[in-house]
Amino acid sequence: MDFNMSDRGQDYLGRVKRFMKEEILPVEEAYHRELASLENRWVVLPVIRELKAKAKAQGLWNLFFPDDTYGCGLLNSDYALIAEETGRSFIAPEIFNCNAPDTGNMEVLIHYGSEQQKEQWLKPLLAGEIRSAFCMTEPEVASSDATNMKATALIDGDEVVLNGRKWWSTGIGHPDCKVAIFMGLTDPDAPKHRRHSMVLVPLDTPGVRIERMLPVFGAYDEPYGHGVVSFEDVRLPKSAIIAGPGRGFEIAQGRLGPGRVHHCMRAIGAAERALELMIKRGNSREAFGRPIAKLGGNPDIIANARMSIEQARLLTLKCAWLLDTQGIMGALQEVSMIKAVIPQMLQTIVDQAIQIHGGGGVSDDDFPLTALFAYARVLRLADGPDEVHRAMVARLELRKYQN
Amino acid sequence: MDFNMSDRGQDYLGRVKRFMKEEILPVEEAYHRELASLENRWVVLPVIRELKAKAKAQGLWNLFFPDDTYGCGLLNSDYALIAEETGRSFIAPEIFNCNAPDTGNMEVLIHYGSEQQKEQWLKPLLAGEIRSAFCMTEPEVASSDATNMKATALIDGDEVVLNGRKWWSTGIGHPDCKVAIFMGLTDPDAPKHRRHSMVLVPLDTPGVRIERMLPVFGAYDEPYGHGVVSFEDVRLPKSAIIAGPGRGFEIAQGRLGPGRVHHCMRAIGAAERALELMIKRGNSREAFGRPIAKLGGNPDIIANARMSIEQARLLTLKCAWLLDTQGIMGALQEVSMIKAVIPQMLQTIVDQAIQIHGGGGVSDDDFPLTALFAYARVLRLADGPDEVHRAMVARLELRKYQN
Amino acid sequence: MDFNMSDRGQDYLGRVKRFMKEEILPVEEAYHRELASLENRWVVLPVIRELKAKAKAQGLWNLFFPDDTYGCGLLNSDYALIAEETGRSFIAPEIFNCNAPDTGNMEVLIHYGSEQQKEQWLKPLLAGEIRSAFCMTEPEVASSDATNMKATALIDGDEVVLNGRKWWSTGIGHPDCKVAIFMGLTDPDAPKHRRHSMVLVPLDTPGVRIERMLPVFGAYDEPYGHGVVSFEDVRLPKSAIIAGPGRGFEIAQGRLGPGRVHHCMRAIGAAERALELMIKRGNSREAFGRPIAKLGGNPDIIANARMSIEQARLLTLKCAWLLDTQGIMGALQEVSMIKAVIPQMLQTIVDQAIQIHGGGGVSDDDFPLTALFAYARVLRLADGPDEVHRAMVARLELRKYQN
Amino acid sequence: MDFNMSDRGQDYLGRVKRFMKEEILPVEEAYHRELASLENRWVVLPVIRELKAKAKAQGLWNLFFPDDTYGCGLLNSDYALIAEETGRSFIAPEIFNCNAPDTGNMEVLIHYGSEQQKEQWLKPLLAGEIRSAFCMTEPEVASSDATNMKATALIDGDEVVLNGRKWWSTGIGHPDCKVAIFMGLTDPDAPKHRRHSMVLVPLDTPGVRIERMLPVFGAYDEPYGHGVVSFEDVRLPKSAIIAGPGRGFEIAQGRLGPGRVHHCMRAIGAAERALELMIKRGNSREAFGRPIAKLGGNPDIIANARMSIEQARLLTLKCAWLLDTQGIMGALQEVSMIKAVIPQMLQTIVDQAIQIHGGGGVSDDDFPLTALFAYARVLRLADGPDEVHRAMVARLELRKYQN
Repeated sequence: MDFNMSDRGQDYLGRVKRFMKEEILPVEEAYHRELASLENRWVVLPVIRELKAKAKAQGLWNLFFPDDTYGCGLLNSDYALIAEETGRSFIAPEIFNCNAPDTGNMEVLIHYGSEQQKEQWLKPLLAGEIRSAFCMTEPEVASSDATNMKATALIDGDEVVLNGRKWWSTGIGHPDCKVAIFMGLTDPDAPKHRRHSMVLVPLDTPGVRIERMLPVFGAYDEPYGHGVVSFEDVRLPKSAIIAGPGRGFEIAQGRLGPGRVHHCMRAIGAAERALELMIKRGNSREAFGRPIAKLGGNPDIIANARMSIEQARLLTLKCAWLLDTQGIMGALQEVSMIKAVIPQMLQTIVDQAIQIHGGGGVSDDDFPLTALFAYARVLRLADGPDEVHRAMVARLELRKYQN
Repeated sequence: MDFNMSDRGQDYLGRVKRFMKEEILPVEEAYHRELASLENRWVVLPVIRELKAKAKAQGLWNLFFPDDTYGCGLLNSDYALIAEETGRSFIAPEIFNCNAPDTGNMEVLIHYGSEQQKEQWLKPLLAGEIRSAFCMTEPEVASSDATNMKATALIDGDEVVLNGRKWWSTGIGHPDCKVAIFMGLTDPDAPKHRRHSMVLVPLDTPGVRIERMLPVFGAYDEPYGHGVVSFEDVRLPKSAIIAGPGRGFEIAQGRLGPGRVHHCMRAIGAAERALELMIKRGNSREAFGRPIAKLGGNPDIIANARMSIEQARLLTLKCAWLLDTQGIMGALQEVSMIKAVIPQMLQTIVDQAIQIHGGGGVSDDDFPLTALFAYARVLRLADGPDEVHRAMVARLELRKYQN
Repeated sequence: MDFNMSDRGQDYLGRVKRFMKEEILPVEEAYHRELASLENRWVVLPVIRELKAKAKAQGLWNLFFPDDTYGCGLLNSDYALIAEETGRSFIAPEIFNCNAPDTGNMEVLIHYGSEQQKEQWLKPLLAGEIRSAFCMTEPEVASSDATNMKATALIDGDEVVLNGRKWWSTGIGHPDCKVAIFMGLTDPDAPKHRRHSMVLVPLDTPGVRIERMLPVFGAYDEPYGHGVVSFEDVRLPKSAIIAGPGRGFEIAQGRLGPGRVHHCMRAIGAAERALELMIKRGNSREAFGRPIAKLGGNPDIIANARMSIEQARLLTLKCAWLLDTQGIMGALQEVSMIKAVIPQMLQTIVDQAIQIHGGGGVSDDDFPLTALFAYARVLRLADGPDEVHRAMVARLELRKYQN
Repeated sequence: MDFNMSDRGQDYLGRVKRFMKEEILPVEEAYHRELASLENRWVVLPVIRELKAKAKAQGLWNLFFPDDTYGCGLLNSDYALIAEETGRSFIAPEIFNCNAPDTGNMEVLIHYGSEQQKEQWLKPLLAGEIRSAFCMTEPEVASSDATNMKATALIDGDEVVLNGRKWWSTGIGHPDCKVAIFMGLTDPDAPKHRRHSMVLVPLDTPGVRIERMLPVFGAYDEPYGHGVVSFEDVRLPKSAIIAGPGRGFEIAQGRLGPGRVHHCMRAIGAAERALELMIKRGNSREAFGRPIAKLGGNPDIIANARMSIEQARLLTLKCAWLLDTQGIMGALQEVSMIKAVIPQMLQTIVDQAIQIHGGGGVSDDDFPLTALFAYARVLRLADGPDEVHRAMVARLELRKYQN
């Protein structure tokens, strides 16, 4: 048994930590202040472009992909701890070209894209020149049940025609967002998991319209954002379909494993940050003759946070290690476990950090806790709600007892 | 034993419900939309003034005060259920001239104000012509421990001089807000609970400055808002002190009982609304072949919400009844109990309602759940954080075992 | 609104409290010690018979029945608080002839029994001369779903013939237990709720056999106990059927309301006792320089216990008041609510009391906490498990939204 | 990163699993039945002696000690998973000579014992010929605070004289138990952690008296048991002191790390067993048209159990790995973390297993769930209550923020 990262992983982690400490964290507050001061916040501030260039130059770029060609050849279990580190900041993931949903979309293209699709979309994504979105969830149906999906991607001769309405299309507000992966029903008569297709849609295609951006607890998370997008008779050549018609579910399945590990590890980084804020505030203020951190049930809260984080991290690392050694099929239950456990854990810790901060805790202008809370809250719904993942864990558990 | 309201209470409740249903609820969405469309939202829209006038004309006005002269002669236990009803709406309390912190401030003036203070401030407050604020919490110290308070209200000849910085001064953004009650240290050498004074401060007094308004989960709650207010050598005649120097704690104590009952009952109304939204959404959408409301652990969530609400309501009614029959000293533990129980309960139910709504649940533009969440979250800190109230409940419990 | 008991209720409660304090509590420990010292503990010790006689002589007898003929004319809401008082002791309920399942069985006989049944069984039960059992739950099926019931009560000419196996037949070990109410399937083709019958079975009828007594966390709860009972071709005259064939569900329904209020109120008395023990232990021992009751999160535990108890009591009183004023059909949701809430609450508080007691808490010989725990744990399963009651609460809640 | 055991560990684990499956599990029920049938249960049944001999012959003996001389040279992280396996059975640990408190006592002797002490006590313990007890907790004081300890081990010339009363001396009822390690105050004036000594006390020394055995939820856990032991002027040569006077705390500290890992891993095995029972029962019974395992919130319960167990196991393995690679000082926080997390987790899962079993769940005669519950409940108090461990985790966490 060995809980250490690989040597390469340790090297990269050390460099990412240094970059975070020296380049990102010092500018973060100013960045948010500057962005907040703008009339139009759907922009990429120069500091981000500069930091991206610097990170790229140092090879801290596309760290997520476990391969030397596209990524840095890091194992999932190595990258996990790096993703955690970047999760302490809201801007770090983009700077290392490791932010959702681009990482997942790039993985889809690497594994399933045609040469032409790779040339057109993967290359600029890997270069950080464009951004992408993923359009799956729909406003009119309970999308936790993917078979509810109503949007269509029908074949018409040499073309595929998209219709439907999607929301929570994350990142679609970004000025560099040029393409979306759209999932829709192609053949209702095919076997259940062969009915849907994934289609690459340039956002300037006629019929694609961003209806509005969605606020999350009052925040639009500019310049990324979550959009409501309608697709009305959007016509594309059949070559825009990824891996051919009917393979949507297969691709979705493969996309999930590493993506959820990344999400969860970033959330653990966020939880560490919330715990750090909680302790610093708790140490710096006194009430009833003691620092708040030592008052009443607060040490229990701190201990429980530490214990939850440690356990969640280990579970995610185990999951990443299974992905590394056995692939997605060997990690199915673990992938659902971390997705069910960690966003809820983050929400709990942030909520407690807010409480220990007192009034300041709920003010967006004074502490990043409301932003962390919104992040946690969304994560309990995004990529499958907690309920769906718990149900999956239970189903796989019961399956162990069948002959 | 009788769990029915008094006849008078039932009559008023019926009328309030009708007013809510016919006058307030139908215009609420349009009101919020109109307000949101404005550049400056720190205004009173005409519809509010009209509804206030209508409510006043029907005698649905100042319902909170248990006396015929100033209020409608309703018992606390009667008003409790009316406050619950108004808690289902964010605008209803002001329309009935029953919103915090004005109700508490009016009570202070009724019980402790001089004739001149009543004439100057109580009269227009009762008439709904002006609004008021309450300035107690301070940004620099853990204000859960009131002895931490740093602001001063020093006597200088015939004057009282205020210095300090307050925040979470609720309602101070309202254009009609004309006066604040300020609490500060007057005599550090007096016995612990005789050191502080409460002072009426016209907001246009030189030295009073609203530094900024505080966002709560991104929302400023216009036109009420929560302000950071600095007081710099604010000079007022000694007659501005309520009930004389050194009586701040005594007044605060008396202010709390009914105020907390009102807060808690409004929060119960909010919880009912969240439960209603949860069920309606849960009934209207299907996943995995069933309405979401009947899926997996969701019926447990609905049952637990109903059971928590019922119990919380009964505890608050008991508390109100104790206030009616024995006064604040007979209800001390109950007042802390409801304040410790109900905001947390509301937060839990709203959080679950969000989850059952799916993505829509976190979008401020689609459902009022984020607003309800922010309301709950603030209430767990306002008027004493949960921890302080639990500590008080425990202290009073242990006291029962002393000889 | 009035949270006071009726005058009659207050009078009885005062007398019961005095009797508890002067007669029962002083002998309780010696009683348990003596019983424990016996080879055969399935006996009624003389002190119990004496105390029964004394209670009966003082009119503190059959307090549970809200009628002057059979009981003392107390309202359910009055008796609730008396039941709470008796719940502080494991022997008190029998002494006042108010223990389950006899109270429920007597109510069944009062409401549904024939004159002959009343003469034969109700009279001696009311006199406290015999005891009874209730045989419904079955070992072979999930009895939470009553339609699973396999036992039969088939009509054969003038006779009814019972077959089946029951368990958790509470009280059947008592030496005075002479009769059981047996529930079985009579007509599988009748409408769902007309299929079962309730039959009065003298325990000495051929074919009735107590197979074994069930330990609950190691305790047999002598001399009451819970039995596994088999019925093999037990033949009785048709007149042994209560209210005629097919009325089993109807009777069961009516039996539940008051019975559950009694159970829940006794459990609240038990919770008060656990809280009292917790505080006394917590006050009497020091660790790390403070009484344990004031250490770390313990005040929160004490406060939460007090808050849970208060809320649970009020909910039960409201339920009892609904039974008094509207009958069982007006209290259906409340009856399920208290049954879902209170046993779990009791378990939680007892568990925390154990923790605060340290090692002593788990020793049956040192504190009554393990006995209280077993009582709570069983109550979460008896009379319908928590899950069934929560499901009922949810079902009734959803029904409010149907047209 | 590597989550696999060492090759040696895998080999031993495979053999232990086979032994469990082929030798222990098949006889377990009969063993318990036979023991229960005896008048005197404080005996070692022949089957145990036979299985011990067989395990010893196969080298499955003293697996716990990470050294080739005394043990099998297994790493803590290897043995952890073996301890988990043995934790599925109440008799397995003794059969492999790996049961508490003997393992901890042997470790103390190995690390701190004199040659003579090793010869006299360690040798027969390693051979499984005798058993031992550990006497630290005291009935009169809150022993969670070790400085409360009142028992004394005073030096009188060449002798050490013991006085005091201990309880929860686990294993002292075993007929082979020949020696206890007693902890007492030697020098009240020494620095805080140099005041106490550990002394080896042959149980037949004059002045040692087992006052009574303690029931835990009605069970005495024969033939091990927990005793109340008084020491009255017990005189022993100074050579009975382990490592010399004043080193009690130092020894206690060193004893804790591996001991707690063993306890926690066995508890995880117990949790796996409870989960297995829960699922088997849940799969085998139907209610309301579905297997109970799939009903309502039960899949969530199963999923949560699986997720808790996985996380707890990983945390314990990490802790064991830290002990292997950095020693106790590198694992202090982890040792407290697992002790705070796992017993509570086990209790929760067992409680839920009971609920899913219905009535049968609380009957000791029908399922081992009450025994598992008692085991969990005791473990939340033994070896430091949850509260002390959480406090330690918090203290170490806060320490990270000090300069």
